[in-house]
Amino acid sequence: MKNSDPLYEEVRKKERLFTGSYLHLDRLTVLQPGNREALREVVKVRDAVAILPVDADNTVHLVRQHRPAIGKTILEIPAGVLDSEAESPETCARRECEEETGIVPGKLTRLMTYAHAEGYSTGFITLFLAQELTHTGKTHFDPSEHIEQVSLSYEKLAAMVRNNEIIDSKTILSVLLAKPFIAP
Amino acid sequence: MKNSDPLYEEVRKKERLFTGSYLHLDRLTVLQPGNREALREVVKVRDAVAILPVDADNTVHLVRQHRPAIGKTILEIPAGVLDSEAESPETCARRECEEETGIVPGKLTRLMTYAHAEGYSTGFITLFLAQELTHTGKTHFDPSEHIEQVSLSYEKLAAMVRNNEIIDSKTILSVLLAKPFIAP
Repeated sequence: MKNSDPLYEEVRKKERLFTGSYLHLDRLTVLQPGNREALREVVKVRDAVAILPVDADNTVHLVRQHRPAIGKTILEIPAGVLDSEAESPETCARRECEEETGIVPGKLTRLMTYAHAEGYSTGFITLFLAQELTHTGKTHFDPSEHIEQVSLSYEKLAAMVRNNEIIDSKTILSVLLAKPFIAP
Repeated sequence: MKNSDPLYEEVRKKERLFTGSYLHLDRLTVLQPGNREALREVVKVRDAVAILPVDADNTVHLVRQHRPAIGKTILEIPAGVLDSEAESPETCARRECEEETGIVPGKLTRLMTYAHAEGYSTGFITLFLAQELTHTGKTHFDPSEHIEQVSLSYEKLAAMVRNNEIIDSKTILSVLLAKPFIAP
């Protein structure tokens, strides 16, 4: 059945160029409007979640970690990829929040789902606000994860976002989108 | 010289796994805290810009295009990658805005620069608000670009962002960040 969207590009062929441990790379041959074939390099990654945990006194709990892809150590909200296609974003959010910060969310509010690199990646991220937090103090890192926990006020974090001191999309977006939920 | 950041991961080796037309893939060997080596698959892409063009009457000008990586046709702001390492984000923003919409920005305001996939990609995007627009009506697409122009009010677009009908990070962020610049 032909797609009725005049801008639709049908995938005619998919070649696996690289199978990695974190990501895969495919080359798609797409049929464009006007019957023209074009090639698209597409990174296949698992979908992910990110969580902004906020205490009743508006303290937020973030992590600092090094990101070799950009060569920087950054302050960001807890996040991680789905364990499997079967794991729900909510389950993943509770797991990652506890693993990275030792905090169990009592209440999760879905803020948004977005494509983080629609030009070349399959990946979507779902953002959650976590409230009614229980602090267990028990984190569970992978041996290859080196993470430092950082707590600060939502207000201070929002100022860092305005000053572009926070540089990752998931943290910037969750701070902007959480604003209506933050007590004045 | 040793980096003083305790979370810093020094790159010990970089292997080029794939050289593409849009992106490259590298495998980094990094030295983690505790002298442990780890591998990181990193996508190398050119940095990009995205532009929200807003008229004096708060009409915004967007584009619809198909994104094979996510298999969807989406409404998004004009965007593109830097022509070369030498091109400034401002020059690129003026060029891409005119090419994709036929609109020449009189005034460009930098809203933010962010990493769109800090976990595995080198890419940064700089967002601009474009105002004092001149509508030339002349677009310049690449033969492989199929783009439809869509104009709507900022208010309508902001509602679509709130309802998560807009799904790409650059459009969502620019709409949220442009709010203080939009006349009531």
